[in-house]
Formats: sequence, structure tokens, C-alpha cells
Amino acid sequence: MMQNQQSQIRTDLAIESAESFSESEHTLSGVVVREITDENAHVHITHVHIKNAQGARRLGKPMGRYITLETPYLSDEDEDYHKEITKVLMEQLDLLIPDIHRKKILVVGIGNREITPDALGPMVVDHLFITRHLIREYGSDSDMTRGFGIVSAIAPGVMAQTGMEGREVIRGVIRETKPDVAIIVDALAARSVRRLNSTIQLTDTGIHPGAGVGNLRHGLDRETLGIPVVAIGIPTVIDAATIVNDTMKSLMDVMEQHGLYQEVCDSVRTFDDQEKYLLMRELMAPEIANMFVTPKDIDETIRRISYTISEAINAICHRI
Amino acid sequence: MMQNQQSQIRTDLAIESAESFSESEHTLSGVVVREITDENAHVHITHVHIKNAQGARRLGKPMGRYITLETPYLSDEDEDYHKEITKVLMEQLDLLIPDIHRKKILVVGIGNREITPDALGPMVVDHLFITRHLIREYGSDSDMTRGFGIVSAIAPGVMAQTGMEGREVIRGVIRETKPDVAIIVDALAARSVRRLNSTIQLTDTGIHPGAGVGNLRHGLDRETLGIPVVAIGIPTVIDAATIVNDTMKSLMDVMEQHGLYQEVCDSVRTFDDQEKYLLMRELMAPEIANMFVTPKDIDETIRRISYTISEAINAICHRI
Amino acid sequence: MMQNQQSQIRTDLAIESAESFSESEHTLSGVVVREITDENAHVHITHVHIKNAQGARRLGKPMGRYITLETPYLSDEDEDYHKEITKVLMEQLDLLIPDIHRKKILVVGIGNREITPDALGPMVVDHLFITRHLIREYGSDSDMTRGFGIVSAIAPGVMAQTGMEGREVIRGVIRETKPDVAIIVDALAARSVRRLNSTIQLTDTGIHPGAGVGNLRHGLDRETLGIPVVAIGIPTVIDAATIVNDTMKSLMDVMEQHGLYQEVCDSVRTFDDQEKYLLMRELMAPEIANMFVTPKDIDETIRRISYTISEAINAICHRI
Amino acid sequence: MMQNQQSQIRTDLAIESAESFSESEHTLSGVVVREITDENAHVHITHVHIKNAQGARRLGKPMGRYITLETPYLSDEDEDYHKEITKVLMEQLDLLIPDIHRKKILVVGIGNREITPDALGPMVVDHLFITRHLIREYGSDSDMTRGFGIVSAIAPGVMAQTGMEGREVIRGVIRETKPDVAIIVDALAARSVRRLNSTIQLTDTGIHPGAGVGNLRHGLDRETLGIPVVAIGIPTVIDAATIVNDTMKSLMDVMEQHGLYQEVCDSVRTFDDQEKYLLMRELMAPEIANMFVTPKDIDETIRRISYTISEAINAICHRI
Repeated sequence: MMQNQQSQIRTDLAIESAESFSESEHTLSGVVVREITDENAHVHITHVHIKNAQGARRLGKPMGRYITLETPYLSDEDEDYHKEITKVLMEQLDLLIPDIHRKKILVVGIGNREITPDALGPMVVDHLFITRHLIREYGSDSDMTRGFGIVSAIAPGVMAQTGMEGREVIRGVIRETKPDVAIIVDALAARSVRRLNSTIQLTDTGIHPGAGVGNLRHGLDRETLGIPVVAIGIPTVIDAATIVNDTMKSLMDVMEQHGLYQEVCDSVRTFDDQEKYLLMRELMAPEIANMFVTPKDIDETIRRISYTISEAINAICHRI
Repeated sequence: MMQNQQSQIRTDLAIESAESFSESEHTLSGVVVREITDENAHVHITHVHIKNAQGARRLGKPMGRYITLETPYLSDEDEDYHKEITKVLMEQLDLLIPDIHRKKILVVGIGNREITPDALGPMVVDHLFITRHLIREYGSDSDMTRGFGIVSAIAPGVMAQTGMEGREVIRGVIRETKPDVAIIVDALAARSVRRLNSTIQLTDTGIHPGAGVGNLRHGLDRETLGIPVVAIGIPTVIDAATIVNDTMKSLMDVMEQHGLYQEVCDSVRTFDDQEKYLLMRELMAPEIANMFVTPKDIDETIRRISYTISEAINAICHRI
Repeated sequence: MMQNQQSQIRTDLAIESAESFSESEHTLSGVVVREITDENAHVHITHVHIKNAQGARRLGKPMGRYITLETPYLSDEDEDYHKEITKVLMEQLDLLIPDIHRKKILVVGIGNREITPDALGPMVVDHLFITRHLIREYGSDSDMTRGFGIVSAIAPGVMAQTGMEGREVIRGVIRETKPDVAIIVDALAARSVRRLNSTIQLTDTGIHPGAGVGNLRHGLDRETLGIPVVAIGIPTVIDAATIVNDTMKSLMDVMEQHGLYQEVCDSVRTFDDQEKYLLMRELMAPEIANMFVTPKDIDETIRRISYTISEAINAICHRI
Repeated sequence: MMQNQQSQIRTDLAIESAESFSESEHTLSGVVVREITDENAHVHITHVHIKNAQGARRLGKPMGRYITLETPYLSDEDEDYHKEITKVLMEQLDLLIPDIHRKKILVVGIGNREITPDALGPMVVDHLFITRHLIREYGSDSDMTRGFGIVSAIAPGVMAQTGMEGREVIRGVIRETKPDVAIIVDALAARSVRRLNSTIQLTDTGIHPGAGVGNLRHGLDRETLGIPVVAIGIPTVIDAATIVNDTMKSLMDVMEQHGLYQEVCDSVRTFDDQEKYLLMRELMAPEIANMFVTPKDIDETIRRISYTISEAINAICHRI
């Protein structure tokens, strides 16, 4: 769900926090960072494991595992490549949910089906192979259902459509249908253009919007939903303030390189990232706070990525 | 939700049961039938009130109120006429849910958005003016929300899409959000071609599928959902067996009129309606049991009727 | 496009005409019938080649090639099986359009996107890999376009949506963009329940609606469009009269087997198929003439079949 | 259609050019500017009439009439207000197309249905009352068609979907169906956040994309289409560079006000708007050139505005 935060730099991605850590910090107590590059799949995988409260404070994220897959080709048309990514995604999901195909899985597609870049979650749900009702009718060992896991799914819509928070719908459904694990798929806002449609983040900590936010007011995690929650997030938009901020940084760099306007540069350089971001927000037209930025071919990108994610979930949940 | 029943004549419409009662039976204890013709709106309104168990047995329907609006023009394009129907619908809803605009309303759009005649419920939800989240954020007396009722809505999808019964999703949502009344909108199967897209049935008894049925296994009523339930149903399909059965009846009539084949006629005449229906089902290709019949312009009809219903709900829930 | 014919038995499928021919007629001048069973793909393939006017008169179809693929599994979920069918479909398309990947192809998806069983054509268009604009921008030998055929596509909608006949839109587009061949994909009406969603018909004669019909008033063929036309048709609906007619036949059979009602049977038996069909239409409620019958899971079936067809077109048009 | 221009400041709106003219220029030969404020409808209407080549050069726009409706409430939910706007829109369309209800009208909905802010044109087409096929079947004086104008419509899709330019599809359709006038509805890119979803531009000059552009390579006007063309455009996106540029201006203003960094300000002030815009583009991440900015509630806004426009076209084309 695309959100908008007023009071801090916007990022839903743990790796964007982790990046600022130098190599040596990988050994710091509380955070373990491990990186793998899968040459076959042209994927760079980063595991960030926040092991205790100290680590959580350092990264400003809840304790738990964060897996980030990065690849420049995620929005490409190449079908074979998407199959590779599907395989990598399956392996990582397997780490976060051991024995997934023996568990009752509820997949939740967060987002607004009517807004192209926010439709990712609902579109993943559309492509899933849904079996819970079949197992309930025929048992798990019938000719019709052998090898099937137990998968149900819901796209709870957004508040403007239902008048309810996603959390309310999901909790209600969990209470009634008692799944073992929830997999929540959501379109995220990235802070960097570079990450757009090229990063998949998996985490067993659920979804935690910043304070004072848009559609998703409360977290979706083990605490609020009562069962383990794995979130799959893809940045499909950036907010307008980020774009402005990034450009300003470039401007400062250029000025500095040319030895120009040293005074300006010095003074603005004294701002930290957070301060610069807030300055930009203040200067921008107020309407911009409620706007998002997304690529012009977002329809095709969303179609491809949603298919890749649903294929991974289908393949790992069912043994057919 | 379009359903398929194997063991009895298919009708979701109380009036189809009531029609077989002669005038004198209107005074029978247990059932009160009252008819009104609204000349302005070209609507014939029938109130069937089943007051006790005896009445329920006679009509084979649960105790409660059934209001049927009949009009040949429901699928017409005439916008003014749809406004008339909207008004009639509001008056009848007002009878079933007194003080509706003071109550917390959950509207449920049953059905499969991907099957044109079954998309009625979800499309009504699409057109609603949703306010629960606004009232929760701004209170009911802010400039933004004055005059608004408290309306939330959900289209729970069908089992093939979610793996869950509609009842499970709806109960979960009710538990979490505690509405006072549920209004359930559903596309029905009619037994007679004549009723298709020309009848609206309102009832405070909820929805009760026959035994051994399709998507909707359990009733959606006060007992299963825990709050008062008003159902709005529109027949948008008929099942294939009904079409065959109706034609057979015509054939018998023609034969009889011509004094032909007395023997055949006599023998088939000894079948009651239920037996004839079962005979037809047996003779039909087995695939037909899972088929429905619907008009070729069902897309436009559904669009118009869904709009009319949502306008009535919007107007009666909010005082703006 | 789903059509409705008043004056003759409804069938868009050449094989339904050919079936009434006995084996010996295969050698008749004017018509060559060849049958292949592809055990791997569980497909039965029938080639009907109407070679001259005599053959055309016999089958009541224009001269040309008709290829029918029959398989009971077309609406199944099995992905591997759909890949087999895709391959068979490619081989047959190759017979009808030699050197297809060297030709400029316009794919036309006939039908109403808003009516589930009629959305097949538009959905095939949605899944195609479209390249004409890329070749025009980058040439056919750039890094970006190497191996690509030249494919454009349009879903012209139906008259109620555009006010124009499909033929007008298609002719206009052909005049402006000058493709070499048109591939027209259309949902058909079948006469037999058995054929529903289990038959694919390919023909180089285009599409020829019967006289006095619905949406498609004029043929779409080489004569009206000015270029070779290959039609791919899938029966996704049957009309209501067909269902009734089929059941009546079963009834007569049952009566006969029981030695009952000889008189009736004899007299009805003297009707030929056409007469029986007309009798049924007359007995049916007049509204039924504008209704169609389709399976309750038609949404999933259409999704799968449209994907299979578009995959075949993609694979045969491009050499990537 | 959302486009992206590399070489000049991005604006599709004539009024944005006209605004830079001072009052006195209203009398300049070649351009007549007339302003009306409709208090009832809270609409400010500006007529810019470019009468000759000199005027065209001054404003950088083709000769013809440009009518701009401005209102802050266009994306509001208020139904009565939308009725007012519909009336204003009708009056202005009447000026541009005299005797419209006696003419054969082709409405063209430009844009990509799959990208929310670009779906405006296709959605207007969805809501139109289409009559050309009825008049052709029943004549214009039948009970069924009396009072109807002759309206046809098409949503030609975008090149990535069809492989064809919009112009090719539209020209083809015009050649075949010979309408008198084309009304082209399109989502535009605005240069100012303030104009977003609050401006409607009407013009009898058609649509003229800047040089070296995206989807719409060639103009859609009387010259290319062969018949008079009236374009209705609504800015629904702004491009990312615009947002950055606007913020930079604010930054400069703030700096200036504080008497700070005079040197910087002076030097940047010497840039004209075009130069500043190009500087910003250069500094931005290259991906941004292919991105757009749009509000988070764009789905509801597009739904409302498309309905308002189609109501105006329906009401003015038909006299029912």
C-alpha cells in the first residue's frame, strides 16, 4: 500500500537502512548481514538479521529477518529470467517459512486494485492456485487434491473502498479460518529511483508503516494478527519529495565539483539527510505530499512481477 | 451467487412460492400477503409476511418479511425511470431497517466479479459512498462528515478465488467491525424467464440456499452472522434445467390443446412439477447441471441495476 | 462473437456439419477429410478441405481449409497439457499461414470484453507480444528487435459499445497499416454441449455468420477485408434452444426404448432435425432467443484458453 | 495520453502559455483572450482565440479556439456540482461544434486503460450512449431512435498494446464510417500541480504533441484526420521534472527573501524557465524522464471526471 510519511525519510526497505553500515559493522552485535550473489539469476541477495533490541535500534526496524533480492531485470520481458527469479524467491521463502507446504497459508494482497502500481498485491492473489475449499471438501488425499497445500487468499481492498482497515478484514478472516501463516504481498514506496521495480524484500517481521501514515495505520505482524507473518514487498512507487531531494543532492554535487557557490554548498551540506528532506517537503507545493511517482510502463511491469511472485508461492505451497 | 441445486425445483424467490396460493389463502393464519401497484413507478409490490412456523412450512421459507418489486422496465436505459425505482426501493428498505441512517451498516456484495451476471453484488459495492473510516477519523459531526451514515462494505469473492466461504469472510469482518445491520446484495437464479432482470426481492430473513448447493453452503442470516440481515436479490440467471422444463410444459399444453397424444399427456400430467423437473434433469447432458442461462446484453443490464441499487442504499444511509 | 440465428440450426463449427458424413463420403469429390490423433497431446485433429463449389454446397460452408482440434482437457488447469496444445496449435497455424514469422500479422480479438464467455478474443489480444511499433522504430535487425516478427493487434469491441461493425473497424485498420494476414480470434456458439470449451477450430475461410444475425452482420474474410484471413474459433456458449432440443431428443430415445408412446414417437420422429429445432424455438419463451448458456466456471476456462492461444501466436510469429 | 518531452518545457495547456501575457496583450492583433467567471458553477472560463499566424507564433500553438474551464472542485464528490460543470461543458462544446446533435460524431478516448490517470479517455467512451448502429438499423425517426444523434466511439489503445499509432486506428475508422466531427478525449500532462484534475481544456485545433515525443507521434487534427477535430483534455499527471523545477523555484524564492546567497540566486535567476527546466532534467536520475507524478486518489478522481465529460457529450449529442 502506498503510504506517505510526513515526519521522516521515506523508506519501506530495510536494505536502505543497512546500506549505510560499513563492512565492519556486519559483525556488530545485534545485526548480522550476509550477502550472496547468484550469478545464474543475476540476483544480489542480502540477508539482514536483526537479532536483538540493540540491532533494532541501530537500524530502526523490528527484530527479525530481512531478505532483499536485487536485480536490474525484474521489469524485463524475458520469461526465462522470471523463472530464475521465481526459483530464488522460492528458496528464500523456504528459509522464512520452513515446511511451508505442510502449513495452512493465507495470502493477503494489500493495495488498491484501481491504482496501477498499488495493484500488485491483488494481482498476485488473482494468479494463485487456491485449494483450501477443495481440501475441505475432498480431504487432502483424494485424487483431486493429492500434493496440494492448503492455500486461501484475500485482497482486502483499501479504506476508501471498504471503510475498514486492512488489519480489521485480515484479523477477521484469520479468526474464522485459522491459517498457520500469513503471507502478505504489498507494493512499497522506495526512496531511491534505482530500487524501483528491481528489488524484492522478504521479511518475517510483517509490515510496519511509519507513524501518522496513510492507508495502513497499524502494523500487520505476529502481534496484531496472532500468527506468523511473512511480508513480500516490491517498491513500485517513490514519493514526489524523494525525487526532488535526489535532484537537489545532484545539484549540490555539481556545484561543488565546479568550485561554485561554496558558501551555499557548505551551508546546505551541514544539513543531514533528514533535514534536507524536510526542507524539500516544506518548499514543495502542499499537494505533492499526496502524490506518487511511477514509471510510464508500470502496467506491464506490475503484470510481470505479480506473475513471478504468484508462481513462486504456487510452486512452494503445492507439491504437484 | 449463482447456485445449482440437484434435488428440488430451483427458485430463490419467495413470490414464486406465494403465487401458487389463491386469493383466499391470503387470510390463512401464518401468512399475510399484501399487494400494491405503484402506477407512477410502474411497479407491482408484493409483501409476503410469514408470521409463524405454520406459514413457514406452507411456503417452504423461513419466517420473516419478503418484499418483491416487479417491473418490466428494470433493464431499460431510461434514467428517470431508474430514479423512480430507486425511490420505491428506498421506501421498502426503510420498512425493513427502521432508522437505517442511524445504524452502522455493512453492505456485502456476494458473487464473482469475473462472471458478468454474478458481478451484481460486487458492482453495487463499487458504487457505494463509504464513510465508516471518515467518521472514525473525523467524528460524525465534523464539517466533512455531517449527515453521513456509517457505511462499510465488502465483496468477499467466491470460494474458487479465496478458498473461503463467503460466510467465513463476512463473519470475520462483522466480529472485527461490529456493524448493526448487514445488507447483502446477491444475484439470484430465477425459475421463470419472465422474472429475469425484472424483479427485486428484499427480505429480512437473509439468504438461504437449498440443501447440497454450490458456492453458498450455509445461510447468511441473523443466526449465522449474529446481526440482523437484509438481503437484496435480483434474478440475473436461470439454470438450464429450468429452460428445458418450461419448454416441455409448453409442449404438453400444445399437445393437449390439439387433443393429441392423450395418453402421453395424461401420463406426464400425473407427474407433479418436482417430478417433471427431475425427469428433465436426468435427460439432460450431465454438463448442463453446471451451466446457467443469461441474456446477451447482461453486461448493460447489470451495470444499470447495480447503479440503481447502490443509489438507493446511498440515499437512505446518508442524509446529505 | 456470440450470435443468434432464427432460421436455421445453430452451429459455427464445420466439423458438426462434416460429422453427418459417413466414412465413404470422405472420398467424394469436393471434400477431403483427414483425421489425426495426437496421442501425446490427447488431441484429435480433423482436417476438412472443401475444394470446390460442390463440396461447399454439400457442407454449407465456403471453400477452404477447416482444422478442428478436439480435446476434453482444454478447460483443465494442467499447465503442461496446455503447452502440448500450444505446440499442436502452432503446427496447424503453420499449415494455414506458411512463413508466418516473415509476414506482417494483424491479430483481431472479436467479442465483448464485458461478457465473460465472449471476452476470449480481447483476452488473447491482451497477452500478445506486440512488435510492429518496435520494428518501425528500430528496424528489424536491431539488438532490440532481432528475431521478432511484425505483430499488431486490435480488439474492435461490439456494436453496442462502438456503434460500428467489427468489419468497419478492422477494414479501416487494415487500410492504414497494411498487414499481410489477419488472424481473427472469436468465441463461438456450439450446437452440442460436448463441444463446449473442448474444441478449437482453425480455418482460412474467415468468419461467416448465418443470415439475419446479431453482432457480426457481414463476413470477415479475404473478400471483405482484402487480405488472407485465418480464423481461430472456440465454442464457449451454446444457445438455449440447443439445450432444449438435445433434451427432447433424449426424451424421445427413452420413450422409444421403453416401447412407450409409439404414436408420439413416430410422429415426432418424422420431423427432421431442423423441424424439431424450430418447434422447440416456437415453444420456448420468446426471451430465450436472446439468451446464451455457459458453464459456471467460464471465467477460469476463458483465462486458460486465451493464454494457450496467445502463447501459440506469440511462439509462431516470433523466433526468439 | 501521457507524454514525455525532452527538449522543452512540458505543457499541453494553452492557458499556461497565455498566462504569461499581461492584460494589455489581450488586445494584441492575432490573439483575443476573453474571461468569464460563472459564479453558479464556481468556474473560471478563459477563451483564447488565436486568429492568425502571428498569434500562433506568440503562443507557440496552432491557430484556433482554446477554452479552458478552471475549478478547484473538479475532483470533489459533490454530484450536484458535477451537474453544473456538465452544463458549462455543454455550452462550451456547443460553441466549438454548432448543431452538434445534427452531426455524425465519433468520440475517441485516447490513453491506456491499464494506467489509472491515463484511463480517462477510455472511461469516457465506456459511459457514452452509442447510437450510430441503432440509427443505421431503425432510421432516425423510429420510436426507438427519435431524438437520438448519431454517435460512435472508439478507444484505440496505446502502441504497446496494439503496435499501431492512435492516428492510424482513428484514420482507418474515419475512412470507413465517415463521421462529420471527431471529439477526442485525452488525459494530459500539466506543468503546474495546481492545474491537476482542476482544469478542462477544449479546443478545435486537435491534439499536437511536442516534437520527439512518446506515444502520440503525430498530431490528431483536421489536417491529419480529414474532418474537424475537437479535443477535450484534462491534466491528470505532471512529469517528475516539473515537480523538481517548481520546488527549485520555491527554494530560490526563500533564499532571496532571506537575503542569502545573493550570488547563487542572481546566477540562477539569469536562467530562463526553459534553461532551469533543462538543468533540472539533467541533474535528475535518467529514469525519471520516463516517470509521471499523480495523486494517490487518482482512481476516484478519474471516475468522477470521466462521468462528467460523458454526461456532457451524451446530453449535447442527443435531444431526449
